Formats: sequence, structure tokens, C-alpha cells
Amino acid sequence: MARVTHPASASALLRHVRTGRARSRAELVALTGASRNTVSARVDQLIGANLLAEGGRGWSTGGRPPTLLRFNSGAGCVLAVDLGVTSVDVAVTDLSAQVLATVGHPIDIADGPGPVLAEVDRLAQKVLAEAGLTPADVCAVGVGVPGPVEFSTGRPFHPPIMPGWHDHPIPSAFGRYECPVYADNDVNVMALGEMGVAGSVEDVLVVKVGTGIGCGIIIEGRVYRGAQGSAGDIGHISVPAPGGRAVVCRCGNENCLEAIAGGGALLRDAVAAGLPVGSTRELVQLAAHGDGPALELVRNAGRTIGTVLASLVNFFNPHRIVMTGGVAQAGAPLLAGIREAVYGRSMPLAARALDITVSDAPDLSGRLGAALMAIEGFLDEDTVHQAVAR
Amino acid sequence: MARVTHPASASALLRHVRTGRARSRAELVALTGASRNTVSARVDQLIGANLLAEGGRGWSTGGRPPTLLRFNSGAGCVLAVDLGVTSVDVAVTDLSAQVLATVGHPIDIADGPGPVLAEVDRLAQKVLAEAGLTPADVCAVGVGVPGPVEFSTGRPFHPPIMPGWHDHPIPSAFGRYECPVYADNDVNVMALGEMGVAGSVEDVLVVKVGTGIGCGIIIEGRVYRGAQGSAGDIGHISVPAPGGRAVVCRCGNENCLEAIAGGGALLRDAVAAGLPVGSTRELVQLAAHGDGPALELVRNAGRTIGTVLASLVNFFNPHRIVMTGGVAQAGAPLLAGIREAVYGRSMPLAARALDITVSDAPDLSGRLGAALMAIEGFLDEDTVHQAVAR
Repeated sequence: MARVTHPASASALLRHVRTGRARSRAELVALTGASRNTVSARVDQLIGANLLAEGGRGWSTGGRPPTLLRFNSGAGCVLAVDLGVTSVDVAVTDLSAQVLATVGHPIDIADGPGPVLAEVDRLAQKVLAEAGLTPADVCAVGVGVPGPVEFSTGRPFHPPIMPGWHDHPIPSAFGRYECPVYADNDVNVMALGEMGVAGSVEDVLVVKVGTGIGCGIIIEGRVYRGAQGSAGDIGHISVPAPGGRAVVCRCGNENCLEAIAGGGALLRDAVAAGLPVGSTRELVQLAAHGDGPALELVRNAGRTIGTVLASLVNFFNPHRIVMTGGVAQAGAPLLAGIREAVYGRSMPLAARALDITVSDAPDLSGRLGAALMAIEGFLDEDTVHQAVAR
Repeated sequence: MARVTHPASASALLRHVRTGRARSRAELVALTGASRNTVSARVDQLIGANLLAEGGRGWSTGGRPPTLLRFNSGAGCVLAVDLGVTSVDVAVTDLSAQVLATVGHPIDIADGPGPVLAEVDRLAQKVLAEAGLTPADVCAVGVGVPGPVEFSTGRPFHPPIMPGWHDHPIPSAFGRYECPVYADNDVNVMALGEMGVAGSVEDVLVVKVGTGIGCGIIIEGRVYRGAQGSAGDIGHISVPAPGGRAVVCRCGNENCLEAIAGGGALLRDAVAAGLPVGSTRELVQLAAHGDGPALELVRNAGRTIGTVLASLVNFFNPHRIVMTGGVAQAGAPLLAGIREAVYGRSMPLAARALDITVSDAPDLSGRLGAALMAIEGFLDEDTVHQAVAR
């Protein structure tokens, strides 16, 4: 059956205006197929709730020119928190994810939730003050976390590199804001950030290749999580090891994708090959400068990642794949290996229009994604419905 | 962000009543969070459009007992067409997918769309007459097709085993009904049928192992199709061939899943091993009777299919996997091989609650799925919105 794409709920109408697909009542009528009366009544409710505003006249194609509608992105703000292993970024944005103020600070995630979230709280108050806003202006909070999170509760689930965080209720640290708090793993959050504010309805895979390898799955512009919330956990898919050797992964299985092609594996292989590097970042820089053996290591990692992506392209048929994370900064040699494997093994129909690129702004996608997660949560069906029903 | 699950649109309210999640206005209010006035107004519209009916009193928890709502599944009927290679089944069902009349007939799909669809037209008129209905009662038509279909137009796309059908507009054969016609490939349609009429919101993979191997992807109860509509095309995913041999697939690549573990591959290997079988069906029957070499062939096919499903379980994290198609009729030995591979290689979080089963009613799921595709199409947001706005 056809996925429902144009319902005429208040939330759907608001989404069309926010994403620029409609700019007037007439365009909303044309887009949704709803009656003019229905659309007008719901638009009036949205204006009453301060989420839409009227202003200016559009071009007429005959008759009275239409009154233009615009999303009132200043109706509130959200806090966006991008928690990393060694640093945290906190931003306050408007409801269009425009940054009003932002601040970064070093942390050690291993200090545990108490000290780290106290620091986040301090930084959040600082950016709010910088933007001339108060806690009462905050409509929602979005937090990206470097580990698995049970999305419905905002509690990390046995995160391997976040000692002391298991089952800690991250939302409780934001009690002063009296608003919804959304926490998710960093790959899902970055995937939202890669989609940007344009309200894309594409099906996209965002693949992060850092020390480990993970994937954010976007379906029609929204994060897909699966039955237990572990969807996208591709780092432990079994791959054929180059040369037929068996590599034991930290998970205990042999020949997992990230044990062969993750950042840690690349560093291990570089050191074994006698390359003068002490970190994955140095190896990536060496490859970026055209060093032959470093290039070959990165390209081989791309080929291995590509064999997995080729299967996922057949299964999932995405519009595009975006590579991000530290190893993706190598760029061309990684992409070359990935493309070689994907275009060699995927079905022509699925591969012919597939776009595989490296993220344009990997440092920003975490913050932007956290802001979008908060905004989407705030502007979902239920919230808008309650706002317009008041 | 959270997928929107409880909007209060007329279509959503109708869905809650149809699927038994709510039986009164009060339960709809509790389920959606919408105001009592909003819910009542929309329910009155749905009653006016003859889609809901009132009747009987429920149990009260204090105060006046609630008036019960029920879906008026007799408000119309749909035609369900299950096109196979050698036979076609046509059924007429009510809007709850209850079969009112059904008929099957041998065809040869290679006769092309003209003769085959003329036969379908004749059968459709026959079942309608048997059920005492007229073409004007038909709200929608659903057609399952043994090949790839461009869902938005209902045109087959280079179907390998349907000569003459490429780009033929299947909906045009049902012009006399003046209603929407939905056509999709048989695997997607069977997947809908496996979901049944309960309105499941689970994420499910329905894997058909016949001559070829394909997969229907269900996300929150709806078919996922991907960018070009080719999602679920898992038959040509590369797998490690047992014994390291290279098997060339009909697609030209080596070691595709269906070239190693499909029905045709099983028959080839059985004949090569000297088993007294002339068809895949006979091999499956031999395995069902406990023949050792036949069992081992089927179990090995299960292991190979399981290596692909293990990767997909990590990526997609489904609630369950349902096996269907001719080879799945082998049952236990196939499942044993699949489970061995999936539970051995999937991440514990994704695998621990995963259910892998064989279809209970593989012969019915095509017809039921075609009916559900038609019903869902008819009762989607736009149609219901137009009905209640009249």
C-alpha cells in the first residue's frame, strides 16, 4: 500500500510550511487534497498557537494574490547537546535549527554522568544567557551520546566506552527546563544532521567509520530504530577477511567488519606494516598526503566496507549513502574502495542512481542533528495537536 | 525522533477501531491524547461516511456505560488477485479482508497480459456475482504479480518470468470498477498477508525461498520499498560458496545467494549428488520424509540463507522473520540451518527476542495480502479525509 504522504493534520500542514513545500493556504490545499475550509481552520489554529505567521502577498495567477504563510521559528528554542568522548558541544537554536549561541568544552566521558552532565548544565545556562533567553523559552532538548541509548527512556544501554553511564536517565539532568528531552546514539543523531533542515523524505544510510563502525538509517527523513533500537549496528557483520586470515573482534566473534576495516584495525595494520604512525588520525593524514602504503590500507578498508554496503544496497535500496567519522576524512581512497565493491556487486536498478559521498560538515552534524531531534520531537503530531486544541 | 504513532486524524481513529485497539470514543481519547470534542466530531464524520457504526453498550468503570463503536466492514468490498506463473486466484472480500467468494483457475503467465488479464476480468465478474455484488460495490483492487512492479504506476518492470508484461499498465484492466487499483510484486503482497488483519506495527522480514529468493520488508505494518522500489531484492547478495567453489548466477555475477541456496540450486545439487528427484518439490518432500542427503542439502541452504539474514538482523533489527515459498515447506531442516547461522552471528541484543518461523498458510497469504493492499489503499488518509469531508 502507498505510504501516507499528505495527510492534512495540523502537524502535517505545519511541516509543509516549515520545509518550504507550501507557502499559502491555496498551496496547502493543492498539496494535501484537503478542503479549503479544513485547511483554513487548521492554519488559523496554528497561527493562534504562534507556530505560523502571516505576512506579505505572493504572486497571483489571477484573482486576489495569496497571503503568504511562514513558520514562526522564533516561537521557542531548543538545546542541542553533542556529547563526545573527550569534548562536548552545547548549542541553543531556534525552531529552524539556526544556532543562536554555541560553546564547546573538554570533558572525559569516563568521569561518569554526574560530573559530565553537571558541566553540560553549566554550559547550557551559559549559551542561553548569551542568546538572551531563559529556561522557560526552551521547548525541547536533544542529546547525542557516544554509545547505545534506549530511545524511549533516554538511558544508555551497556555503552562500551562510557563507564558508569549504563541505565542513567539522561533526561533527569534537564529537569529545570520542564520540556521533553530526547537522547539517542551519536550515529542516529549525526544521520539526522546530515539530512539537514530541508525536510528530506529520502531513504539514506549514514555510515560512521571511526574506531568502530555504525550506521544511522533514515527512512523518509526519520530515524529507523528497529525492534530493540539496535538497527544500524553493522560493525559486527561478518566479512571475508583479506588473505583468509581470522581476526578476533572485541565482541569475541571472528572477522567482524570493524575488526577488519575500523579505525583501530587500520592503525593495527599500519603499525604491523612499519608505517610511522601512532594514531588512526595520523594514518588518515598520511593517506591524504598521498603515501602509497597508507592509501592502499585505506582503500582496502573501503573495499571491505563496500562488500557490506553492497548487500545493504540490495536489501534497503537507499537514495544515498553518506560516509562520516574520522576514517571518512581520508576521502577519495576510502570512497574509491567502497564504490568499487558497491557498484560491482549491487543490483543495477538499486545502484544506478545511488549517490555515495563523504559528509560535508562532520563536525557540525552532531549538533545540528541534536537540534533537529529536539525540534521534530517538539513539533510532532501530539504536541502540535495539543497546542492547537488549547 | 519518535515515529508518530497516535495522530488523531479520521483515518487514524478509524484504524484504531478497525484493529481493535479502541472500541469507544473514550478509548480513542485515551489512545490519541486528542480532546473529547475533536474525537467525537471526527467519529460522527466517520459514522456519516458509513465507515463506523454504533451499537451496544460496553462495561462502565463508573458512570454511563460507553456506546461501542465498530468498523462497518460491509461498507464496500475489494477484489484480491493473486497472479502466479501457472494459476490465478481471484477473491472478493469485505473491508476486513473476510473472503465473500473466491475462485482459482490455471493460466500461463507467458501468454502475456492480454489473455491473462481477460481471464482475471472474467473470474472477477464471476466471484462478484457469486457474492451477490456489483462492480459499483468494489472500492479497490489489489493485484500480486510474480515479478518486479513499479508500484506508483502498476506496471511490471522487466519481469524475468513474465514475457510481454514489461511496462503493461495492469490497472487499465480494471477500468470497469472506477476505483483505485494497486499492483505489487508477490513477495511484498505475501508479506502484507503474513501480517494479517490485526494491524501489526511490527518490523518484519518475509523471506520467500522458491526458485529465486526475495524478501518483503514490513516497517510498522507497512511495506517498505526504497528509492527505486527494489528494496528486499536479496537473491543476488554475495555469499561465501560452500567448499570455495564459484557458482555463476543467471544475473552474471558469481555466488549470489539464490545461485547457492535457491530452489533451482538445490535441485541442481540434488541431481549432481544422485538423488532420485526431478523437481525442487520432490526434493523438499524427500527431506520432509527424513532422507539424509536431502535433509543435509536443505539444511546447508538454510545455513547459507542464514549468513545473509544474520547481517540483515544486525542492520534492520526486526521483530520477526517469516519464511515462505516452496523450499520453506521443508520446515525444520531449513529453519535449523537458518537459526544456526543467525544466532551464531547476530548481535545478542538484536537476536535475543527474534522469532524465526515458517508461514502458517503460504497458499493464502497472497490473496489475503492483495486484499489488505486494496483495503489499506482505500482507507488511507486522503480517501478517508475526502469521505468525511463530503
